[in-house]
Amino acid sequence: MIKLYYVTDTCALASHIALEDAAADYSTVRLSFAVEDQRKPEYLAINPKGRVPALVTDRGVVTETPAILAYIAQSFPKAGLAPLDDPFQFAQVQAFNSYLCATLHVAHSHRMRGNRWADDPSAIEAMQRKVPASVTACYELIEQKMLGQPWVMGETYTICDPYLFTMTQWLEQDGVDPSRFPGVIDHRRRMSERSQVRKAIALELA
Amino acid sequence: MIKLYYVTDTCALASHIALEDAAADYSTVRLSFAVEDQRKPEYLAINPKGRVPALVTDRGVVTETPAILAYIAQSFPKAGLAPLDDPFQFAQVQAFNSYLCATLHVAHSHRMRGNRWADDPSAIEAMQRKVPASVTACYELIEQKMLGQPWVMGETYTICDPYLFTMTQWLEQDGVDPSRFPGVIDHRRRMSERSQVRKAIALELA
Repeated sequence: MIKLYYVTDTCALASHIALEDAAADYSTVRLSFAVEDQRKPEYLAINPKGRVPALVTDRGVVTETPAILAYIAQSFPKAGLAPLDDPFQFAQVQAFNSYLCATLHVAHSHRMRGNRWADDPSAIEAMQRKVPASVTACYELIEQKMLGQPWVMGETYTICDPYLFTMTQWLEQDGVDPSRFPGVIDHRRRMSERSQVRKAIALELA
Repeated sequence: MIKLYYVTDTCALASHIALEDAAADYSTVRLSFAVEDQRKPEYLAINPKGRVPALVTDRGVVTETPAILAYIAQSFPKAGLAPLDDPFQFAQVQAFNSYLCATLHVAHSHRMRGNRWADDPSAIEAMQRKVPASVTACYELIEQKMLGQPWVMGETYTICDPYLFTMTQWLEQDGVDPSRFPGVIDHRRRMSERSQVRKAIALELA
């Protein structure tokens, strides 16, 4: 059975929602950053990166949210979570998720994780000051150029949707003005009404 | 016909090599950061992110290196560039490429692109000072936990190989001691001997 290692209020929520969307048979293991579970030897044996999420399968471990999401979509094809038979459309899904992973999430991470990229406390504060601008720039691109209706890819719900929804949980904390992004906020509201999303969040907060 | 927009000495080389590996019928368009081609309206119409690479296909544009590489692998299945029929193995390929995109490339980018994440010149210098340590940490993980023999995924060459090769072009400039990573350096040498790699590099430098 699939087992998802996660920390509450992290990007792991995207994979958790996708498992619900896929009606997968899975269990979860909650870790805590507060006690540094992610750096303990037993977890590093699962994911040497010391990050979440990690998806443990019968064949081994999958890490990295874009990889996990595509894995779920391919492993549960009946759920229709990605255009698996169309390389171009699949590439659009992957490009969106890659942008969230490598640009939006990275911009966001400069608010809480600046020590990854500098040691000087004043530099870390300078990074924090730029987060509202850099994250806003990402949402401008998403709102104007990338976001379909009613779902990210248009008429069909895909693995892009739980990932965007997860990122938008941090939008206000990152200093982004939600009134500037009505499409993104509407997507967040629409997602929050889905039973699969409610269930994943309830499980993470229980 | 496929058209690759690239800038020399960027991550676009990975896609260029993969097109050669796939024996694809393609053409290239070279842009220059020096004259800010990537911010000109004609390029922003192709890729609103203002980044390279962008792959223009008959059906539209694909961006983001992990998405482009998987697209090439799926579009030219006879080239055998990814385990397309095995979701778990495909996820391993994707996880590796996602790590290069969102962790290694991001760590590297703090040397030349610090202004993405801070405005203060002293903060940008502080970021540059940490690049040798943060990039070295990535290569430690790659060397010890992620790298197969003779190729990234083991016996079979995949789209992970041109991507890692491309990243390793910057290893010394990033202040990483190559003698600490014999496996990575051996992979780079092995890649540099491939005719497809030589051809892609020659085309980019011509």
